Amino acid sequence: MENYRSPQRDAAFVAYELFDFQSHYEALDLEDVSPDLVKAIHAEAAKFADNVLAPINQSGDQEGCHWNDGEVTTPEGFKEAYKQYVEGGWPSMSHPPEWGGQGLPYSLATSIAEFFSGANHSWAMYPGLSQGCISTILAHGTDALKQKFLPKLIEGQWTGTMCLTEAHCGSDLGMLRCKAEPNDDGSYTLTGTKIFISAGEHDFADNIVHIVLARLPDAPAGTKGISLFIVPKFNVSDDGELADRNQVECGSIEHKMGIKASATCVINFDGAKGFLIGEPNRGLNGMFTFMNIARIGTGLEGMAASEAALQGSLRYAKDRTQFRSPTQRQGERSADPIIVHPDVRRMLLTQKAFAEGSRALAYYCMQQVDISQRSKDSESVQLAEARLALLTPIVKAFFTETAQEATSYGIQVYGGHGYISEWGMEQLARDTRISSLYEGTTGIQSLDLLGRKVLGSKGELLAVFLKEISAFCDTVDADEQTGLWCKQLGQAMQQWQKLTATVGKAAGANPDELGAASVDYLMFSGYVTLAYYWLKMATVAKQKLAEGTSETDFYQGKVATAQFYFARLLPRAQSHAAAIEAGAASLMDIGEDMFKAD
Amino acid sequence: MENYRSPQRDAAFVAYELFDFQSHYEALDLEDVSPDLVKAIHAEAAKFADNVLAPINQSGDQEGCHWNDGEVTTPEGFKEAYKQYVEGGWPSMSHPPEWGGQGLPYSLATSIAEFFSGANHSWAMYPGLSQGCISTILAHGTDALKQKFLPKLIEGQWTGTMCLTEAHCGSDLGMLRCKAEPNDDGSYTLTGTKIFISAGEHDFADNIVHIVLARLPDAPAGTKGISLFIVPKFNVSDDGELADRNQVECGSIEHKMGIKASATCVINFDGAKGFLIGEPNRGLNGMFTFMNIARIGTGLEGMAASEAALQGSLRYAKDRTQFRSPTQRQGERSADPIIVHPDVRRMLLTQKAFAEGSRALAYYCMQQVDISQRSKDSESVQLAEARLALLTPIVKAFFTETAQEATSYGIQVYGGHGYISEWGMEQLARDTRISSLYEGTTGIQSLDLLGRKVLGSKGELLAVFLKEISAFCDTVDADEQTGLWCKQLGQAMQQWQKLTATVGKAAGANPDELGAASVDYLMFSGYVTLAYYWLKMATVAKQKLAEGTSETDFYQGKVATAQFYFARLLPRAQSHAAAIEAGAASLMDIGEDMFKAD
Repeated sequence: MENYRSPQRDAAFVAYELFDFQSHYEALDLEDVSPDLVKAIHAEAAKFADNVLAPINQSGDQEGCHWNDGEVTTPEGFKEAYKQYVEGGWPSMSHPPEWGGQGLPYSLATSIAEFFSGANHSWAMYPGLSQGCISTILAHGTDALKQKFLPKLIEGQWTGTMCLTEAHCGSDLGMLRCKAEPNDDGSYTLTGTKIFISAGEHDFADNIVHIVLARLPDAPAGTKGISLFIVPKFNVSDDGELADRNQVECGSIEHKMGIKASATCVINFDGAKGFLIGEPNRGLNGMFTFMNIARIGTGLEGMAASEAALQGSLRYAKDRTQFRSPTQRQGERSADPIIVHPDVRRMLLTQKAFAEGSRALAYYCMQQVDISQRSKDSESVQLAEARLALLTPIVKAFFTETAQEATSYGIQVYGGHGYISEWGMEQLARDTRISSLYEGTTGIQSLDLLGRKVLGSKGELLAVFLKEISAFCDTVDADEQTGLWCKQLGQAMQQWQKLTATVGKAAGANPDELGAASVDYLMFSGYVTLAYYWLKMATVAKQKLAEGTSETDFYQGKVATAQFYFARLLPRAQSHAAAIEAGAASLMDIGEDMFKAD
Repeated sequence: MENYRSPQRDAAFVAYELFDFQSHYEALDLEDVSPDLVKAIHAEAAKFADNVLAPINQSGDQEGCHWNDGEVTTPEGFKEAYKQYVEGGWPSMSHPPEWGGQGLPYSLATSIAEFFSGANHSWAMYPGLSQGCISTILAHGTDALKQKFLPKLIEGQWTGTMCLTEAHCGSDLGMLRCKAEPNDDGSYTLTGTKIFISAGEHDFADNIVHIVLARLPDAPAGTKGISLFIVPKFNVSDDGELADRNQVECGSIEHKMGIKASATCVINFDGAKGFLIGEPNRGLNGMFTFMNIARIGTGLEGMAASEAALQGSLRYAKDRTQFRSPTQRQGERSADPIIVHPDVRRMLLTQKAFAEGSRALAYYCMQQVDISQRSKDSESVQLAEARLALLTPIVKAFFTETAQEATSYGIQVYGGHGYISEWGMEQLARDTRISSLYEGTTGIQSLDLLGRKVLGSKGELLAVFLKEISAFCDTVDADEQTGLWCKQLGQAMQQWQKLTATVGKAAGANPDELGAASVDYLMFSGYVTLAYYWLKMATVAKQKLAEGTSETDFYQGKVATAQFYFARLLPRAQSHAAAIEAGAASLMDIGEDMFKAD
């Protein structure tokens, strides 16, 4: 995907025409973050993504990472790109000035993360993991630990990781065994093996700071006995200089379906020195504050993949000629560009609807994160947190599930060529497949949405969001077309509430009803949610067209895609509704030995 | 997937309990093909698939094929496996005794092809392509050419290919440019380059016989100017011995998403000697007779992948422990096997419903191919051909599309481990992705189904099939459960007819309506068709249970899966129906320049 182009125009549309980020930033005392500044930062980030990261995406996949006796070498160009990233000041964007950060809003840092991920998913994971590590230390570290680790991390001289998973426990972290024993000097000695540690070892930086989940000696069993530790690859002196090597080693790297240029490490802690952060035994709670925001980042990977698939498919569909169109023949030639064919358009529009619909919802969530982090008005903070609680699992799971369809269409539009590595489409599909697995699988997100968020709040979180949609539909200046969409959306909202009530009641009698409905419930929610954002986008676009604009193609494309979405994608919610209504019986009635004869 | 086990029990169920292959073979004067013989052949084939092919599946993916100066070396063990395959007499099973074949029915040869493909998709392609070549020569070759090529091909000493695609034309073969010029001796000189030639070069056999589509000098443009040629890698003397090397060379092999152990070749014909088969300029017609049957084979690849994904997922779901079940706790342990969780069951049941539902439809089609090839009753032949005409594109496209979901669930059930190569699940997803591209993409199959078959027969082919389903529902001894399924199926059939009428009418006014509806129409048809076969299977299973059986798990599993299918999968047809009803406008209204801003 050397031709990947960061979607700057659409980013500006969503930020400034759809959500009025100018007023948003002003309300948060961020008037320095002017539209011009955002535009300039987006342009610089796009330059880096398109010209530095995209060109090493395919070669990185082909070369992969190399492990040798505990050391990991990343593919050619990766280290150099990281150096440029650090020199460009990108790592520090959204972090507090007191630790060397630029104090820019989360939304700005995250919007450019889409560009990086779209250009090169594997590469973008290294700095992405650092952000997780930094956020955790910021939230839970003592001042001394912050002083020791944050400046170098925020500057990008060091990178970070999150060490959660062990071989026998992924989703179910309550079973983890990694141990931390207290030392006399207040530090801890960590022992155990973690797997699937992204960016766990590499050649980008002088030091790697691991955030490790482990158990104290007297810890209770289960999730209530997990604590958080900082464990650096190299020990660090009190003045922040590198000291001796810690007992942390990369035992091997995984061979994977995709993101081959991202080192996925087995990390052995063999009596490693670490530092407790946060309350003992409360590590998982501390983690989840951060995890919710990290999950938005994972959702963005899916959205970025859908965007990249659209770009590639569109380029090919305009170039490749095959068959004549019955209605749109282009001159005297033996075949027309395949974009004339309805089924090719169906695939392109699906990619566009997912990529751009997701972008709208993503920016909305970024806005809410800004508010939750910076607003001084506690009601606004509370409302933003309520919105995020509901929407985060949708962003994570729906964006990454739809990315699988969008990238599969990327292959399909190319026909047999889509299966050939040189065209880049099959890599997109392989790379993005991870995003519905890590940071909580689609199944886990769905239980979070339905169980913890919707039913856990007794429907309150859902009601808040539905109220917002209703208010929009009530006040929008609807023409005939948008009026129909509002009606369709209104019906979907009613159904959403009804389904919630149905499942809630059933789950009261039989807790398996929750898991039986959860993934279909999340997909239903995703389709309805994106319909709302497509309605909003089309409304803005229609207004721009009515006012007169030089960008008629851009705005008409928005309206046409909304039409496509309401006509052909929103109806998919019905099959998910039917599956939810079918209940748990058809899943649970089958005995374990009935699945296979032999 | 070293643990792949050929699904012999289910194959026997479908062949003998569902479709009564005993009477079927007797009616075709094949009384020698007794149930015991079929069972023995299935057992031998399973032994070969499970013990020889499956163990080299993963290593083959990892090693891939090697190209060196026109020669291709296959991965370790592949050549030896082929030798065993030839020694076992497998290549000749279904071919006529007069050319060295064993004269066994198509259904028997094809049912074991599922085992081979499930064990090792890449390997199975080499002999699979030979079958295409043999069938073409059998159908169109002169006696002299048959004498020259068939015995060695049927024996398996030589292999064959089908050379259709060129760089600029895949689906649209009318544009092909490869040239064939007549020589004085009655042979032709072929010039041109073909791409995507599976098994185009390898180290299995002494000679490779290419079937090549090319144009004669005076050929009309388009599809009506294409002829069929035999072009061997080594020329063959009249007595069938190898002579000099022909001007056929493998220019390179492709790097692909999957089936990496299958050599996908660029083949250069640089003044190669070839022989016309069939009528000049009628090559494509000749090809399509065979292609229809070949497409069943490609559909089987999808079904085999769904089966393999089910096997792998089930093994893991019974072994991997994670979280407690709220309702099915298994003793005192920290976590239960994940098969207790409803969402894991949803994925397993989806895999089972697709794999086994597809197997039922596949065996039905195999039966119809037997009849079309061997029955002496012209009405039976006509009916079988009518059924196959309708069902073949469904088998090809629906089985391969659903295989993508089934293999993706394979990954998902394994969580992060599914993404790691050593577990085998990600390879399944990569390998099976090709099957909805080659032998006619899903888009092409869908146009074939809706345009050529359903509307092209003025609904007659669909009516024949719906009549069969109605007759079954009318006569089946339904209990309350099957009665409800019959009703659901009856409604789906009515809807199928109504949708057909709607699209037919719309397409009369606007031919783009055909392509706009086609893929959703195929998916709708697939979901309804599989419902019929699940109803049939459940009916047989209920009868067996009523009669008393030692295999209660097996039969109860069938009934439970039918219940799952009707409750949670058949409703998906509704979202496809909605997309069909939405029509072409939302696809065609968007201008080409409206898809992207930049």
